[in-house]
Amino acid sequence: MNDLEYMKLAVELARKGAGKVSPNPMVGAVIVKNDKIIGKGYHKKFGSSHAEINALKDCVASTKDATIYVTLEPCCHYGKTPPCTEAIIKSGISRVVIGTLDVNPVVAGKGSYQLQQHGIQVDIGVLEHECKHLIRFFKKFIIDKKPFVLMKYAMTMDGKTATYTGASKWISCEKSREKVHQLRSEFSAIMVGITTVLKDDPMLNCRIENGRNPIRIICDTTLKLPLTSQIVKTAHSIETYIATAQTDDEKLIPYKELGCKFITVDKKGDFINLNQLMTKLGKLQIDSVLLEGGGMLNWSALNERIVQEIAVFVSPKVFGGSPHTPVTGQGISIPDNAIKLQPCSFSSVGSDFLIESEVIYPCSQEL
Amino acid sequence: MNDLEYMKLAVELARKGAGKVSPNPMVGAVIVKNDKIIGKGYHKKFGSSHAEINALKDCVASTKDATIYVTLEPCCHYGKTPPCTEAIIKSGISRVVIGTLDVNPVVAGKGSYQLQQHGIQVDIGVLEHECKHLIRFFKKFIIDKKPFVLMKYAMTMDGKTATYTGASKWISCEKSREKVHQLRSEFSAIMVGITTVLKDDPMLNCRIENGRNPIRIICDTTLKLPLTSQIVKTAHSIETYIATAQTDDEKLIPYKELGCKFITVDKKGDFINLNQLMTKLGKLQIDSVLLEGGGMLNWSALNERIVQEIAVFVSPKVFGGSPHTPVTGQGISIPDNAIKLQPCSFSSVGSDFLIESEVIYPCSQEL
Repeated sequence: MNDLEYMKLAVELARKGAGKVSPNPMVGAVIVKNDKIIGKGYHKKFGSSHAEINALKDCVASTKDATIYVTLEPCCHYGKTPPCTEAIIKSGISRVVIGTLDVNPVVAGKGSYQLQQHGIQVDIGVLEHECKHLIRFFKKFIIDKKPFVLMKYAMTMDGKTATYTGASKWISCEKSREKVHQLRSEFSAIMVGITTVLKDDPMLNCRIENGRNPIRIICDTTLKLPLTSQIVKTAHSIETYIATAQTDDEKLIPYKELGCKFITVDKKGDFINLNQLMTKLGKLQIDSVLLEGGGMLNWSALNERIVQEIAVFVSPKVFGGSPHTPVTGQGISIPDNAIKLQPCSFSSVGSDFLIESEVIYPCSQEL
Repeated sequence: MNDLEYMKLAVELARKGAGKVSPNPMVGAVIVKNDKIIGKGYHKKFGSSHAEINALKDCVASTKDATIYVTLEPCCHYGKTPPCTEAIIKSGISRVVIGTLDVNPVVAGKGSYQLQQHGIQVDIGVLEHECKHLIRFFKKFIIDKKPFVLMKYAMTMDGKTATYTGASKWISCEKSREKVHQLRSEFSAIMVGITTVLKDDPMLNCRIENGRNPIRIICDTTLKLPLTSQIVKTAHSIETYIATAQTDDEKLIPYKELGCKFITVDKKGDFINLNQLMTKLGKLQIDSVLLEGGGMLNWSALNERIVQEIAVFVSPKVFGGSPHTPVTGQGISIPDNAIKLQPCSFSSVGSDFLIESEVIYPCSQEL
């Protein structure tokens, strides 16, 4: 096996921490000596030991002159655990292959510098694209103190999210819906607008084996959420935040009694101030939000520039005449002013297509 | 080179006839002896000699015991030209490799049988998928006596074909628009609805080098087409049909004077009867129609089941709130009743995605 293959294995290990390590990054590590893997590890849970330490502990042979493959630059600071650079230096490892440098200013570049100062060979940038992808939540969170937001929707080949009667069960195929539940288990929180709750009365939980329910966030400017909704009824068992501009404490009481928590946010136009909400979610240590629409909230989120990526499930069918599309709201007037996307991945999911894109906001106007 | 590679060459040759041979099929042929290509040919123009004959004429060496690769089963009947099977038998060729059997009942299977009866080895089905694709217009035309219809549209990642102001220049990238002009040059006719003409005043011509203008068909139930439109003004130089239920001859005269031709069609609901129109286009020897919307005509065409394929250019941008989507009209009410597509190809065109699908109509209800 070569460097790329060992790093690929480290990436796969890292992904096992999805949904469990936030707001820390997912990290994987593989230790190799004489072309044999002698230890593997990954960051399993927020606050627990780092991938490098777990890999070192896992070693079945001496680590003297071994190589460690680690998806993210080893830390060099005392956080919840001692610095990984120290442990690596002590272990006698002679080469460190790093997927991508850390984005945390406390570490960035300093970890690898420290290793090099101790005569260790450091190679950076193996499978960098995948390794950067592993830390996209962490990167957004550590730099902006706000969560990474992925907007997800399913539409037909003619851009519809429901028929003209409002029926939307189902647009996408079973495999796509499974993948959405997988996504839910990887994000800290899921967010929808009140219109979606009133229309579908959803649970917004994660319905896959061993799946973890994300925190539920309902954007509900004037507090219209029914006390009889599934969301409210299950708020004692699944953490639920209502983001609202409603400040009449009296009105909040019955929801609180049923287990709902509140995030009070200023109004911006007819809607809550989504940037303020993101700041408040950041303070709650929420590093990632899966935004599941509807159209109005999707528009506001894009217009307020809180969205980093869009995942579109395109189903091979046509609904025809229906006003229901994935992004509604006011919209842009001139095609040149469209919100621009940078497609980064295209794949088949069952009978559907999945197009994943980054949102490209013009820098000069960045909020 | 092996059988697949020689057939691939034959397919490439065949494609040179695109837009020039209709309503005949595109066909290509390669003659090989001792692993060397000794002749190549394709069907160049409707009424002219067939691919096999052109390849035989092109031969630089004796064809005795050579192999001919031909994308479509050689004909065995006297049409505009003598049967190709006879020429092949005379040439001394000992092996015939066929991409796909003919769908014309006069030929289907009989051509290859005749060759075998003369001791020639016949192998069928090499690169069959591509070879069938070459004759999809011909197949529809020969079986149903109606043109093959490809619906083409461009939309944003949120399913919009224009902003809320109606602006649509441009949705897709330059490369996609170039590809559309390439398509136009390959189809016998292009068809739009009157709403598109009133909105955009398009030329509907083919703007690529050496491109051929398709016949223009305007679906205009009540004859609202302005005499001052670009379409009418250029009707003397580009063949133009107005498909209408307007039967007041007086009203047709000024259009006729400007070069427009008419196809009178019964009404079906508020629209012209599109199946009747297709039958009439078939009688005019039009084997292929590129349908370029708008939304109302697209819906009627799908609802009337005249569409065989859909080509969707998806542009990586978001418009938000806008009522303009690729398929409008009444639409379906229950998701299970959606018009189903079978995606057959996905590709990148410049910065856009192109998704090509077949339309799957339930057999029992087939018109």
